[in-house]
Amino acid sequence: MKAKEMMDKNFIYVYPENTVADASIKMENSRRFTTPVVNEEMRLVGWITSLDVTKGLREGKKIVSEIMHPKEEIRYLHENDPSRLSVIETSKHKLISIPVLNENDVVTGVIRSFDIVDTLSSLYEVKVSKIYEAMEEQLKGVSWDELMEASAIISRRTTGKRIKPEDYERNIKNSTFGEAIWATGGLERFFTGLIAVGELVIARKVGKARK
Amino acid sequence: MKAKEMMDKNFIYVYPENTVADASIKMENSRRFTTPVVNEEMRLVGWITSLDVTKGLREGKKIVSEIMHPKEEIRYLHENDPSRLSVIETSKHKLISIPVLNENDVVTGVIRSFDIVDTLSSLYEVKVSKIYEAMEEQLKGVSWDELMEASAIISRRTTGKRIKPEDYERNIKNSTFGEAIWATGGLERFFTGLIAVGELVIARKVGKARK
Repeated sequence: MKAKEMMDKNFIYVYPENTVADASIKMENSRRFTTPVVNEEMRLVGWITSLDVTKGLREGKKIVSEIMHPKEEIRYLHENDPSRLSVIETSKHKLISIPVLNENDVVTGVIRSFDIVDTLSSLYEVKVSKIYEAMEEQLKGVSWDELMEASAIISRRTTGKRIKPEDYERNIKNSTFGEAIWATGGLERFFTGLIAVGELVIARKVGKARK
Repeated sequence: MKAKEMMDKNFIYVYPENTVADASIKMENSRRFTTPVVNEEMRLVGWITSLDVTKGLREGKKIVSEIMHPKEEIRYLHENDPSRLSVIETSKHKLISIPVLNENDVVTGVIRSFDIVDTLSSLYEVKVSKIYEAMEEQLKGVSWDELMEASAIISRRTTGKRIKPEDYERNIKNSTFGEAIWATGGLERFFTGLIAVGELVIARKVGKARK
């Protein structure tokens, strides 16, 4: 995924000559805490946050250029940068939004922190049953029921609690990978459980074939 | 993980009687775009954002209570709520921060969107090799080298590109689960590959045992 696929193209912008008051009204109306400052060609020249605006209003500053951060001080991405960079920049520099530029330094979008939260969570909001379907597809000759039986056995082995295959099936249809990770306490542990299921189901398949 | 484990305890707050100017200075100095408004017992009574402040300053509002959103209009969490709720609230309501309350409605922390990005990404920023280590641990009697050989074979099968086991090992030591998911195009596909590796390595183990 590239920055341009994640960015919001519906962003606001202001010019350095705009009044601070006009900029603040624009930001309030669109509920944006930050905005790029651009020149006539839409090239990035600066950045203001609503905190620069509150300070500017209090101190009687008149125009945007008096309160903006110049381009050199701003974190930004290019359209073809991997979108993961936005995640790294956001969490490292505690940003709430990052402008995205094309090859001519023209602002073409803005990536906001809640867009990242949205993308990150949806990436992992896959139902656990989908992973089992992939497993069934991969392990030719193993049926869905055999997979559920093996899972119930492994689940009992690790948690000590008895669970019926049909209850296990209901659980994985209702819970997401994200929830499972948070619940099992980490990726490796979740994965170890799945491998144990795979191993058991293969062992049982081999056992049957020998009979 | 609970909300209280994710929240930032180092938050700012203001009182309804504070002047808008004082609130704005506090927010600017601590670089916070939002702040809870509390009473003398630190109970949540309202919420202001820097956009409420810019509007208030422009319109000549004097004190915080004139510009704040009352408690009824605010999204908040309780300490023992699952922290995943903060993810859902943030992405659904496009929030940049959420106050966290204890059982007495006292504000004990704030969860900010970049803290969520940080947690979400670190949750998945596990090296792929860690998952292989869990796999090796689980599959008793399968060596690390056998695992790398099987992986190189599966990798060639799916990508069509020849890769040496030692190069495969280097790749998984350098890349994270998050990167692998983005690269393979989804959780299910990544997982199918791993199951294929597990299947092959078990088949080879069984084959050897029969000789």
